[in-house]
Amino acid sequence: MKIRKAIITAAGKNQRALPLQMLVDRDGVPKSALTILAEEITGAGIEQIAVIISPGTEKSYEASAGPHAQRMRFIVQPEPLGLGHAIHCAAEFTGEEAFLLMMGDHLHLSQTGESCARQLIETARSENCAVSAVQATHERMLPHYGCIGGHRMPGRERLYEVEAVIEKPTPTQAEQKLVVPGLRAGRYLCFFGLHVLTPAIMEILARQIAARPAAIIDLSRALEELVRSERYLAHQLEGSRHDIGQRYGLLNAQLALALSGKDRDEVLTQLIELLAQSQA
Amino acid sequence: MKIRKAIITAAGKNQRALPLQMLVDRDGVPKSALTILAEEITGAGIEQIAVIISPGTEKSYEASAGPHAQRMRFIVQPEPLGLGHAIHCAAEFTGEEAFLLMMGDHLHLSQTGESCARQLIETARSENCAVSAVQATHERMLPHYGCIGGHRMPGRERLYEVEAVIEKPTPTQAEQKLVVPGLRAGRYLCFFGLHVLTPAIMEILARQIAARPAAIIDLSRALEELVRSERYLAHQLEGSRHDIGQRYGLLNAQLALALSGKDRDEVLTQLIELLAQSQA
Repeated sequence: MKIRKAIITAAGKNQRALPLQMLVDRDGVPKSALTILAEEITGAGIEQIAVIISPGTEKSYEASAGPHAQRMRFIVQPEPLGLGHAIHCAAEFTGEEAFLLMMGDHLHLSQTGESCARQLIETARSENCAVSAVQATHERMLPHYGCIGGHRMPGRERLYEVEAVIEKPTPTQAEQKLVVPGLRAGRYLCFFGLHVLTPAIMEILARQIAARPAAIIDLSRALEELVRSERYLAHQLEGSRHDIGQRYGLLNAQLALALSGKDRDEVLTQLIELLAQSQA
Repeated sequence: MKIRKAIITAAGKNQRALPLQMLVDRDGVPKSALTILAEEITGAGIEQIAVIISPGTEKSYEASAGPHAQRMRFIVQPEPLGLGHAIHCAAEFTGEEAFLLMMGDHLHLSQTGESCARQLIETARSENCAVSAVQATHERMLPHYGCIGGHRMPGRERLYEVEAVIEKPTPTQAEQKLVVPGLRAGRYLCFFGLHVLTPAIMEILARQIAARPAAIIDLSRALEELVRSERYLAHQLEGSRHDIGQRYGLLNAQLALALSGKDRDEVLTQLIELLAQSQA
């Protein structure tokens, strides 16, 4: 399976300013969230990137991408009709090829020497099928994520055959359909904001859009259909996901980067000074 | 002294994206740094705001100001010729009136019920002269700030008559000219990023620009001239200053906001979870 293209979605209603936010990366270098994503993508060997944006934001994105802007194509989603619709805006860009999909409001921190994108791409290549990154997630977080149910592949500690996909399941739905043998109780495999998908997903999305024009088209519903049409795996990556669109999401992402990077001691010192000065 | 107008400077070379950064304020509400500044200004009773920006950034600033955009005038500084030059771009806007000056890359946290801007404006009104907010600052931070020397006003714990102003002084310069009786050793009164200035400063800047066109015009040199021409005070505010343009400046500002706000417990809990997960 060739994976030479990536899509970053950044057209969501409350999401448009997020890739422009500035962070200091693990090496101590200040850069935008968009640049951090672009570096993860190119570091995994992918050279062509489509960024799905909302109308009127192209100039700021270009500025925020720095030297990566030249390998980016900015595709405007004219109306905010959901993540599935946004992805389908890049159907022509991906054509007949599999592609890496990243959410513009998620950052990933690998716990190994290999980036999260690279771990996922290697799995997709060796298994030759669509793979979504997932993370064991406490049930109180279910309202924020899409979730999968399935079974661990024999002999593979972190790979699962996906059998069900539900977007933002209720705890009851999760208990009935998404319990994964081997996970701790009350934990479910939720999406990580990182997928390798096949051209089949674009066909499914096209059908769903044609059937309900002007409706919100989400990704999970299309993945649910993918489960029934081809082999589709979930990979529990060695890393953590940070949704920078949540309240204090940027703060948490920045702290996680700093505490696992070269400035750990400096940031810990500042943190302790602040705590000492602050009052309840 | 009437103070009805404010200037926010945001045209500095590495500063242009800073007012667009998203933070969660003390009340737990996500908003841009620009909105936080605008709220501090309007909360102090000022309705007209000029924002000095670099070319091509107006659209993003407008979007980032939200409902405050309607009371903002965006003035473009055509070339990055320094803070003094940027301020002078608003000479027509301020006219014959005193004005509040804020740096777009500084956030302020009051330790009293009154915002830092309001504390400063009240002093300027009651003393009827120009006043700069200052903070006792360790000498290792001198390379980052403008500094003043002077004497405490009799009977006023936090007010100083300014006698000297030096931009980013060396430790030797500071020891010779900026020692303020009553401060701890090795501490100096550095600018806080908040001033109330009189129309005289616009005249001084106009003369300095005419004398050296195309040169970088800083603010401290103009304030040095102000010291010699009219009464000029420094107010050690009850609050802290956060320069979000420094490395980890955004992180520190966000932590300071969160640790002094209504979400203190929530953020402390997240912080401890992150520390427990993170590895050196």
